Amino acid sequence: MTVEEVRDPDERSRIAREILAGLPEWFGLEAANEAYVRDVATLPTWTVRGEGFLSLKRHGERAAEVYVMGVRRDRHRRGIGSALLDAAEEWAVANGITMLHVKTLGPSRPSRGYDSTRRFYEARGFVPLEETIAFWGEDNPALILAKPLRSGLTVLPLLGWPEVSEGDDLAELVAASAELEDDDVVVLAQKVVSKAEGRVARLDDLEPSERARELAGDEDPRRIEAILQESVRIVRSRPPLLIAETRQGFICASAGVDSSNAPEAGMIVLLPLDPDGSAAGVRERLLALTGRTVGVVVTDSFGRPWRAGTTDVALGVAGIRPLLDLAGRRDRAGYELRHTQIAVADEIAGAAELVMGKLDGVPGAVLRGLDLAGEGTAQELVISPERDLFR
Amino acid sequence: MTVEEVRDPDERSRIAREILAGLPEWFGLEAANEAYVRDVATLPTWTVRGEGFLSLKRHGERAAEVYVMGVRRDRHRRGIGSALLDAAEEWAVANGITMLHVKTLGPSRPSRGYDSTRRFYEARGFVPLEETIAFWGEDNPALILAKPLRSGLTVLPLLGWPEVSEGDDLAELVAASAELEDDDVVVLAQKVVSKAEGRVARLDDLEPSERARELAGDEDPRRIEAILQESVRIVRSRPPLLIAETRQGFICASAGVDSSNAPEAGMIVLLPLDPDGSAAGVRERLLALTGRTVGVVVTDSFGRPWRAGTTDVALGVAGIRPLLDLAGRRDRAGYELRHTQIAVADEIAGAAELVMGKLDGVPGAVLRGLDLAGEGTAQELVISPERDLFR
Repeated sequence: MTVEEVRDPDERSRIAREILAGLPEWFGLEAANEAYVRDVATLPTWTVRGEGFLSLKRHGERAAEVYVMGVRRDRHRRGIGSALLDAAEEWAVANGITMLHVKTLGPSRPSRGYDSTRRFYEARGFVPLEETIAFWGEDNPALILAKPLRSGLTVLPLLGWPEVSEGDDLAELVAASAELEDDDVVVLAQKVVSKAEGRVARLDDLEPSERARELAGDEDPRRIEAILQESVRIVRSRPPLLIAETRQGFICASAGVDSSNAPEAGMIVLLPLDPDGSAAGVRERLLALTGRTVGVVVTDSFGRPWRAGTTDVALGVAGIRPLLDLAGRRDRAGYELRHTQIAVADEIAGAAELVMGKLDGVPGAVLRGLDLAGEGTAQELVISPERDLFR
Repeated sequence: MTVEEVRDPDERSRIAREILAGLPEWFGLEAANEAYVRDVATLPTWTVRGEGFLSLKRHGERAAEVYVMGVRRDRHRRGIGSALLDAAEEWAVANGITMLHVKTLGPSRPSRGYDSTRRFYEARGFVPLEETIAFWGEDNPALILAKPLRSGLTVLPLLGWPEVSEGDDLAELVAASAELEDDDVVVLAQKVVSKAEGRVARLDDLEPSERARELAGDEDPRRIEAILQESVRIVRSRPPLLIAETRQGFICASAGVDSSNAPEAGMIVLLPLDPDGSAAGVRERLLALTGRTVGVVVTDSFGRPWRAGTTDVALGVAGIRPLLDLAGRRDRAGYELRHTQIAVADEIAGAAELVMGKLDGVPGAVLRGLDLAGEGTAQELVISPERDLFR
């Protein structure tokens, strides 16, 4: 389906006249139709040839109204209205508009046609503001709906989760706490993934080795034993701090073994054995539950050399490219950015952390407005030992 | 200042009558005032005792209207209106409302009082949708404004910037490309800050030292000379890669010296000498230009040991706390998160990078929905040599 912007004023009016004439259920007043036909001549207008049209009316700098829209009766429910609205929204964003609104017949006067019109707008993110008789009188109550337009990124916390236990269906919990859209990226803290997968241990069940006792200093040697079991190598140690390379290839404090937010005192949480697999599993199950194709990122808080504090990074990804490769792309002066790869999965993890907090039981977030759908694993984020200057 | 919710219907009416009586410039019609006094009895209402009140009218599931609001004339410009609106918004978000709207006198009928009313709402994120005579007739054109309520974080790219040159006023460029709100965090790429500050150099003006020639290998020794001049120490070298500690204390590739996105071929861009000072300068100037109190973060793309790709990090900050300290806070099981500090300034930098891209000339972003206002510098993000396991 092709949406075209109509630039000729006469053509705008001609298209509006033709389409509106075929929609008496919505546009039954001759005088009102003539006003639309006249007005659209001066308005930004888009059409799918022979099938439908939409005209926007700008109000001031930042707002525009869907002034009139019509799609041929026998072509409804085929995505024509959505395509017209997408084109109008793209134009609006490019022109600095931050809010769209529309007026349509309100629900207090039932009408099958307008009921479906309101459903159309609500499904596309318009929020009903108010029904009022101010515009068209008591017989035709008007409903004003408005929709904020985004040109950037939105990060929404996942709220209202219960404590997660082994066997819980994380995708079901995500679906219950977020209205997902295609191309959303769902971020889940490693802690809830590990708990759902039963990757927890009881300190009482751990028998410290000789080496664990040596490294422990004043610390609990059972915890050090867990770290050693999760590690292939200790990278640095200064008790109580142990920096280890985990069996998944990550280099981080305590090999990711953590006592905070454990199911109960005396327990510890370990990293998922295969965080890319965890992410892929949640992604697949979300598709089955919601019909939405999303990316999934499993994250944890890591320290870094030289810089204070932790930032969240990606341990597992599915459905997104974790590295954005700019090789071959050129700057304004023609200089090739040949060495530049951006670790977008780690930046996604950090952005999610900003809304997740640590103690409020927020287990993840949804990022909307990225364009990173693709294939990849978080293992791509691990520098191979032979290329690494710092191992 | 204390905002209270008023639960008693009679008290709501009593408060409204008292406040509105003192505001003849806005509420000069006896009959309209009596209607307000009557209606607010049934509406959610908040007050700052003796100073002002606000009543919300819910419309359906997801929308609410600021039905009436008044603040004593001699108490204007003290944050009372903002505090009332904050309380109302908090209630609205908790009650599932996603959009607030309000009607006020439109700009086509000039009035000093209502001009400031509109400025109040616009400064708090309301977008003017439409001026209409439908509600109150031709003599009192109504302006409808609407504001989407957020529970998360929004990251908006700064668009439409020209190429930046020495002496350009970055705050002016920010103000022209974003409608700032209080507590926004403005992120600026180091590249535009350096260019505005004249921190660029011509390769032809650099005379390579002996050491630069040694380290250069196949590379341009003049570029290596610039890196040496910007460095206090070379941390690792594997030509063409040099990891250096800069005079600002950062450890990064090429001491931040970069040929990409330079003003022209044969030029390089250097890090700002004092990025915290740069951030503070932009912040102060934004306050002067826009009246908004914001945070500012100056960012650059850094590689990291062990992990592939770059992430953006904070080189300079002003008006925010760069580290969120969770010391003393406890998880659900009572375990103290004693070692946890989150490098939120670096996560802010990464979140901004997700919308900035590399080649599309997007020099920064605005983050809205964080609650990190405070004091601090990006120097707090540099681990002191004696505490650093990796120097």
